[in-house]
Amino acid sequence: MISSDFHYRDKIPVAILGATGCVGQKFVQMIDRHPWFQIVSLCASERSVGRPYGEAVNWLMSTELPQHLAEMKVEHCFPNISGTIAFSGLDSSVAGSIETQFAKAGYCVISNCRNHRMDEDVPLVIGEVNAGHLELVKSQDFGKGMIVTNPNCSALGLTLALKPLFDRFGIESVHVTTLQSVSGAGYPGVPSLDILDNVIPYIQDEEEKVETEPLKILGKLEKSKILPADLKISAHCYRVPVIEGHSASISIKLRQQINPLEIIATWKQFKSLPQEMQLPSAPFQPIHYFEQNNYPQPKLHRSLDKEMAVSIGRLRPCPILDYKFNILSHNTVRGAVGSALLNAELLVRQGYIFW
Amino acid sequence: MISSDFHYRDKIPVAILGATGCVGQKFVQMIDRHPWFQIVSLCASERSVGRPYGEAVNWLMSTELPQHLAEMKVEHCFPNISGTIAFSGLDSSVAGSIETQFAKAGYCVISNCRNHRMDEDVPLVIGEVNAGHLELVKSQDFGKGMIVTNPNCSALGLTLALKPLFDRFGIESVHVTTLQSVSGAGYPGVPSLDILDNVIPYIQDEEEKVETEPLKILGKLEKSKILPADLKISAHCYRVPVIEGHSASISIKLRQQINPLEIIATWKQFKSLPQEMQLPSAPFQPIHYFEQNNYPQPKLHRSLDKEMAVSIGRLRPCPILDYKFNILSHNTVRGAVGSALLNAELLVRQGYIFW
Amino acid sequence: MISSDFHYRDKIPVAILGATGCVGQKFVQMIDRHPWFQIVSLCASERSVGRPYGEAVNWLMSTELPQHLAEMKVEHCFPNISGTIAFSGLDSSVAGSIETQFAKAGYCVISNCRNHRMDEDVPLVIGEVNAGHLELVKSQDFGKGMIVTNPNCSALGLTLALKPLFDRFGIESVHVTTLQSVSGAGYPGVPSLDILDNVIPYIQDEEEKVETEPLKILGKLEKSKILPADLKISAHCYRVPVIEGHSASISIKLRQQINPLEIIATWKQFKSLPQEMQLPSAPFQPIHYFEQNNYPQPKLHRSLDKEMAVSIGRLRPCPILDYKFNILSHNTVRGAVGSALLNAELLVRQGYIFW
Amino acid sequence: MISSDFHYRDKIPVAILGATGCVGQKFVQMIDRHPWFQIVSLCASERSVGRPYGEAVNWLMSTELPQHLAEMKVEHCFPNISGTIAFSGLDSSVAGSIETQFAKAGYCVISNCRNHRMDEDVPLVIGEVNAGHLELVKSQDFGKGMIVTNPNCSALGLTLALKPLFDRFGIESVHVTTLQSVSGAGYPGVPSLDILDNVIPYIQDEEEKVETEPLKILGKLEKSKILPADLKISAHCYRVPVIEGHSASISIKLRQQINPLEIIATWKQFKSLPQEMQLPSAPFQPIHYFEQNNYPQPKLHRSLDKEMAVSIGRLRPCPILDYKFNILSHNTVRGAVGSALLNAELLVRQGYIFW
Repeated sequence: MISSDFHYRDKIPVAILGATGCVGQKFVQMIDRHPWFQIVSLCASERSVGRPYGEAVNWLMSTELPQHLAEMKVEHCFPNISGTIAFSGLDSSVAGSIETQFAKAGYCVISNCRNHRMDEDVPLVIGEVNAGHLELVKSQDFGKGMIVTNPNCSALGLTLALKPLFDRFGIESVHVTTLQSVSGAGYPGVPSLDILDNVIPYIQDEEEKVETEPLKILGKLEKSKILPADLKISAHCYRVPVIEGHSASISIKLRQQINPLEIIATWKQFKSLPQEMQLPSAPFQPIHYFEQNNYPQPKLHRSLDKEMAVSIGRLRPCPILDYKFNILSHNTVRGAVGSALLNAELLVRQGYIFW
Repeated sequence: MISSDFHYRDKIPVAILGATGCVGQKFVQMIDRHPWFQIVSLCASERSVGRPYGEAVNWLMSTELPQHLAEMKVEHCFPNISGTIAFSGLDSSVAGSIETQFAKAGYCVISNCRNHRMDEDVPLVIGEVNAGHLELVKSQDFGKGMIVTNPNCSALGLTLALKPLFDRFGIESVHVTTLQSVSGAGYPGVPSLDILDNVIPYIQDEEEKVETEPLKILGKLEKSKILPADLKISAHCYRVPVIEGHSASISIKLRQQINPLEIIATWKQFKSLPQEMQLPSAPFQPIHYFEQNNYPQPKLHRSLDKEMAVSIGRLRPCPILDYKFNILSHNTVRGAVGSALLNAELLVRQGYIFW
Repeated sequence: MISSDFHYRDKIPVAILGATGCVGQKFVQMIDRHPWFQIVSLCASERSVGRPYGEAVNWLMSTELPQHLAEMKVEHCFPNISGTIAFSGLDSSVAGSIETQFAKAGYCVISNCRNHRMDEDVPLVIGEVNAGHLELVKSQDFGKGMIVTNPNCSALGLTLALKPLFDRFGIESVHVTTLQSVSGAGYPGVPSLDILDNVIPYIQDEEEKVETEPLKILGKLEKSKILPADLKISAHCYRVPVIEGHSASISIKLRQQINPLEIIATWKQFKSLPQEMQLPSAPFQPIHYFEQNNYPQPKLHRSLDKEMAVSIGRLRPCPILDYKFNILSHNTVRGAVGSALLNAELLVRQGYIFW
Repeated sequence: MISSDFHYRDKIPVAILGATGCVGQKFVQMIDRHPWFQIVSLCASERSVGRPYGEAVNWLMSTELPQHLAEMKVEHCFPNISGTIAFSGLDSSVAGSIETQFAKAGYCVISNCRNHRMDEDVPLVIGEVNAGHLELVKSQDFGKGMIVTNPNCSALGLTLALKPLFDRFGIESVHVTTLQSVSGAGYPGVPSLDILDNVIPYIQDEEEKVETEPLKILGKLEKSKILPADLKISAHCYRVPVIEGHSASISIKLRQQINPLEIIATWKQFKSLPQEMQLPSAPFQPIHYFEQNNYPQPKLHRSLDKEMAVSIGRLRPCPILDYKFNILSHNTVRGAVGSALLNAELLVRQGYIFW
């Protein structure tokens, strides 16, 4: 639904749905610096429509909002706007139907929302883990439109850390306790009175996502269906007074007896399609293993490798399962917007998107 | 080794070893209000000896240091001081030999230190869990002296939460991830630069303690020996920016199939010797179970029931083991000084201490 | 407007307006333990009316909500409810007219809200500073009803600290920078993303209140009018990541040259009507002066003397005005609910309230 | 004292004194990326000497320590090392004499330490404020060696904000209350138990520095002497739970009646020598004025303009002096290492340093 007055030669025109929200702003910030994409539409809810974006938004990013975006008029989340790709940071209360509408109208919808993640014909993709699942869009019924999703922020770091071990040694079961930052709850999100000098042992629907999404992501695509991985995950999710960066303690049972050094080597050597293709949002190395006994930590490692790496440390035997270790990843970049961009880049490079 | 000028009629004279440290101060604060005990000696390291306690100490408690204690002269940690009981908050680098000296000299040493916890003839006791183990002091070789210890702060809350289930249903294995407050590291302890906007996935020697101490505590005393419980524990320990109160996520495998309501009822009904004896430091109810889906939390529940309760919430099925739940306890009271006091009270009421 | 089925003999029946809000909950918590008052009505907005209070409220206090209050049905904020005194913790968007209605209907309205504070015939009272201003209710036009207010949380600590110096030496001008805790913003209040690892140099309308309210409180009641004090105040207000307790740095110019020791003595000796009358909410000593060079601090001193004291420290010369010092007070007790209770107690003891 | 085996052609060889400390590490991190300087010696105390820097240091920076530096052997703080410039991040307990030794031996000592700041013949320089004072080194008695210092982190932001107003309108007096981050105290620095949920109204010697250093910096160089500015400053200094970035509330009395718009314009237009010379460490614009009523904030603005800008907001009338406003600057870059580098760059460009 590219409007007739479109005239960008080199960059792909993109729209951002839910542009005033927390995830939407992160999309705006990151895409504005992106070498392939050009923001042509900023869409939000009724009360922002028609106002300059700079006025409609309560800008929370730590870099300044560029003038040309501040002046852009906010549009309706309706598929008559400019753009080939629609990045969605919509609230899950409305994302489902709006994303479907955009896909039907021919947009390539790249969504960070939970609504379509578990749909049978919607790929749930982490660039380095299951780029092959993108093929699933062929069985979608949207003409040249499509919907592609990335997983929940905690599921993402976990699955990426598991992937090389899953492929090489097989994994039977995974115990995980997450310590999630407040930025994962959006804005205004967690009240300060709830989290200063405190931790909260509950995040709505989070444990369910962490226990199910990785099974689809690690699953096999067979005859246009995803066969979920045969793997049990048990999750505890905590909110902690950290601004950015989700941590997790993990215990795993493998399907083979493996030497710890081999596990570490497997992590260190892991590279995948986004690295081979040298995609703009791909980290140089998706997994960084640290030898220091008190690493990884949110404050020290969340910004590693374009904020797109998963940091791992402390691999050691687990008295119940086989091994224990700790991970850390940047929840709003690697765990959300950065991984959505990586999905878009894969689609472009693999010829799924025309403009 | 009570000095000749002792003249307290009603209260038991006690000494505090390591009185200027963080644990020592908590002993001072709590014992000063204790109905049975009277502080007669404050002992610390060389550099404090001879000075008034109020000058020697960097008082960190939130109640004021009483004048009569502030004026008390600090003494050597040498067993020629007044007192029948010696409460030890010594640094573990020196605690081992000093505590042995005091026991040999006839003092009843009640220690919060790790040094003697795993000694064969030293009881490692949580009042509500294994008061019977106190009998072990009879096999100690200290004349009328003795050493009694309480567990590590994280092991304590965990073991107390497990106890009623262990007795009634049997427990096979336990996965635990702790989120421990900074007060657990003493003073100056954790630098603010390390913990503001951060969590640290490592606390020295902590996982070892959490994996081993509960086995001794839940063990059986047979022929003057503790037979450790047959139980596997796997622990991950995090430091988090919370001032007071250790949280933990727990998954357990029981030896029977049990209905969750029965587990909750078992917790709620749990009372033990300290409750029956109505000991001054005993909580009314050692375990509080909450129905709210985001409880327990450090800020809301650490002060419950004299800061001596373990709060539990969110019992739910675990996809790998049987059940998951979350616990919270006050680390410097229930997890340290309050439990030490409870041990002393049990010894007094059971006739182990004379004065 | 006491309903016919009223039957409390000993306690004064009170209603709480805005009972589900943050201030309302603090009223509920504190009044439930009050020796003179008995909660008979809990009033809140439409959406809570008719529900048991325990369900309607998101209880944030650290003590448990007593069962008898949890079961009480929430009523409309309409003056047909039981109660002689109506404590108001209403939101300022509605407080103005509701409080007037209640006063007209004969209730003694004790309000923590800003709406009527600067009304000519409404006393703005801190028990220890200007109890005499309560007389102003006689010129109110509400029959036996009345409205009495207490100041803003920051204005309160400041004014109480100034009072003894104002009376004895005269004050010409006051520079103050506040560091205010997040509990002062109510709930959900300050988003954690705004305040973790941050301070905010602005609180809406706060500087205006701090610059004007003290002038009325320190003013003279003459012929049923308050003559504001002749005093200039300049305020900067910051929000800081502290849970409870407002700090302030203060510089003052006195009307006489005074020795610092005399100032300290004046503070230490300061006692007032609430102390003489030994009112239940009165601190033993309204002002505590500390000699330590890094006192007062929120964490150490906010709970001092029933959370009703103002702590002061670091009196030293100011190169521009005369003296500098630092203060600290508990913002939701001394700065709000506790001071409102003290006002009610004064009215009762001075015969302004009949029941 | 450049050793004979020196062979860098293009870059100026520099040594870092106190390289393992907090300020020293920041020097290492920033100089390693510097276009003009090359680290050739890392000096520290006895216990680090001879060890590879990567082992001797507890690296706290959020970027990785480069391998070539990690392998460099730590040397004594003795002036027989390689290097033309010696950047000093020494502890003030030893900085005084070591810096003098290095200057006497011919090094250009650029110091962030307090020891020589107020020495009569030592320039105390902020690049944009008083670059002219560097001339003072000519009256030093060190041969080709010299000592140049930069001010205390809080004094720096304050003085830079005052400079354009001082020059254009004159300033009579300044009230300032600082809210200083924990990184200002070095490492381990402030214990977390002291600052979580707390603020501390005292930082040792800080108020004295803030009240005196600006007078020297804003002073006039006449006949090889600095005539201190005629200006009264009154300072309150707080430590707050912020990781990086010092905030301050400021009230000023000018020597003329000025329209606020003119003040803002004066700030916005302010550029100085480092901007004209386009020095590598110079911010594009030293002062950024914000119109938003809750700006500046540490989390949002500390990284502005290479972390070298002073952010200002909320200019408004002061009821006692003339105007109030709020400032924010990055304390370890603008307030320390970045300003030291700027001083070195000025010396190089103005021909004070040969190599």
